[in-house]
Amino acid sequence: MSNVFVLGHQNPDTDSICSAISYAYLKNQLGMDAEPIRLGDLNNETLFALEKFSAAEPRLVKRVSEEVSQVILVDHNERQQSAEDIGDVQVIEVIDHHRIANFETTDPLYFRAEPVGCTATILLKLFKENEVEVPADMAGLMLSAILSDSLLFKSPTCTPQDVAAAKELAEIAGVDAAEYGLAMLKAGADLSNKTLEDLMSLDSKEFEAGDHRFEVAQVNAIDVNEVIGRQAELEVLMEQVIAKKELDLFTFVVTDILNNDSVAIVLGKKAGIIEGAFKASVVDNRVLLPGVVSRKKQIVPVITEALS
Amino acid sequence: MSNVFVLGHQNPDTDSICSAISYAYLKNQLGMDAEPIRLGDLNNETLFALEKFSAAEPRLVKRVSEEVSQVILVDHNERQQSAEDIGDVQVIEVIDHHRIANFETTDPLYFRAEPVGCTATILLKLFKENEVEVPADMAGLMLSAILSDSLLFKSPTCTPQDVAAAKELAEIAGVDAAEYGLAMLKAGADLSNKTLEDLMSLDSKEFEAGDHRFEVAQVNAIDVNEVIGRQAELEVLMEQVIAKKELDLFTFVVTDILNNDSVAIVLGKKAGIIEGAFKASVVDNRVLLPGVVSRKKQIVPVITEALS
Ligand SMILES: [Mn+2]
Ligand SMILES: [Mn+2]
Repeated sequence: MSNVFVLGHQNPDTDSICSAISYAYLKNQLGMDAEPIRLGDLNNETLFALEKFSAAEPRLVKRVSEEVSQVILVDHNERQQSAEDIGDVQVIEVIDHHRIANFETTDPLYFRAEPVGCTATILLKLFKENEVEVPADMAGLMLSAILSDSLLFKSPTCTPQDVAAAKELAEIAGVDAAEYGLAMLKAGADLSNKTLEDLMSLDSKEFEAGDHRFEVAQVNAIDVNEVIGRQAELEVLMEQVIAKKELDLFTFVVTDILNNDSVAIVLGKKAGIIEGAFKASVVDNRVLLPGVVSRKKQIVPVITEALS
Repeated sequence: MSNVFVLGHQNPDTDSICSAISYAYLKNQLGMDAEPIRLGDLNNETLFALEKFSAAEPRLVKRVSEEVSQVILVDHNERQQSAEDIGDVQVIEVIDHHRIANFETTDPLYFRAEPVGCTATILLKLFKENEVEVPADMAGLMLSAILSDSLLFKSPTCTPQDVAAAKELAEIAGVDAAEYGLAMLKAGADLSNKTLEDLMSLDSKEFEAGDHRFEVAQVNAIDVNEVIGRQAELEVLMEQVIAKKELDLFTFVVTDILNNDSVAIVLGKKAGIIEGAFKASVVDNRVLLPGVVSRKKQIVPVITEALS
């Protein structure tokens, strides 16, 4: 059994999984006994990336404190997005690229957050700073994370640093970034084997703003209507989540990865803020968000501001 | 007027001041219009360092939002230790070496915290990562910060990284670290021109643990009894601070910088936790703490744990 777990957020995306694997690899090279784990099921996009670069699925662990006393967080810092028993272990490091909130420690730690498009972009710096070579498979995983988080460099969260890192990693991995990236995104947008329940939790994150709690789920799709066409059924499931988690707002975002637009279904007693916040009309609980693809940069700050 | 302020914590110590000056210098070299400021009076130790390396005193600014909309925090992150109107500006960067608490942003930012003994140790890395040369005066200031925070490398917070950084900086600054450091600490331990009120606030920080608020003030001294001998007067002032800030505990620590021990006066309705927390006898509100010199590593975590 390992001494330290490296974990991404709940409902893990490709960055959370690939960064956990790559950073655990780096820490192992530096002499730490670290193991990457996951808090939930893998999506089709991540499975595609792991298969491409022959990487093993991290082990599913729900309660980390039953096995370790120290953890490293990647790709998140907010406690409600982490392991359910995160309060029972010591967080010794955080590598992240999100806002900082609901995070607190008793002791100093290594906390490296940078306003870049992907955790893996920071990891590449850490490999260099520690003078550890990036093997081809790890390069492929980190590249996958950047292509996923940046939607092939088209997300507004993408920075020149991400583009440069991806270029460097693609060379080490020996793949064409654009071609591989599109195949990976398409694999992720294949929702045919997913139930509506799956879609709700595939990539859903919970946030707090003032006294309000809200959740934003996001699904990538090639054909948005394949998902939105089942709005009535989705709303029933969304209402169940709202009741269970006592949310004030649930925003379910379907992102068209080829055209870089989104459609969102909004429910909850604070749904009324959406029109003003996004300056867009909500019709039948549905709103079109042209050019919006980034939850982190284009959705969460807007809702946080409106609710605060 | 500058666009961005760089600031350390309230009741600034040598690290907070010297790191603000050095990091503002680095940001200016990188094209940002940044100005170091201070939130309070300079202590004798810091004045000694600024004079030695011919550095100007940063400007005193109490309300940052009246002049800028963006700030960079060095040497702290907790909002109650920062500018009183910190909530009204955007924190775009944090460079720190303390625990993380009471810190929250709406947007991603550059947050670099490392478990080293001094902010300036991290700054030296940032100069290198950005390929900016460290001039002799900045090297002297950063060296002063490390010597101060590490009590001449004798604090348990001091890491091999701090020692290595200090060595490198001493060479650039052209001073003997041990000799200069002792002179600087002695200048700081000269309390002859300080009132008891000064001593209370010279280096005092407020913390939260669970629902409790506590403050820990620390004073370096050559002759501990010079301060402790006035305990009765100090207690009157401490009770006033407790009432004003509604503290549950006030710990006033006098550290013997030559022998590396401390004596603390403890007051407040939670003072009863001290005996168990430190496994030491409190007699007449006073406790001897052998080998304890670091508030961050040896005092705050212990009190936090006991209060939580
Ligand atoms: Mn990410
Ligand atoms: Mn410091």
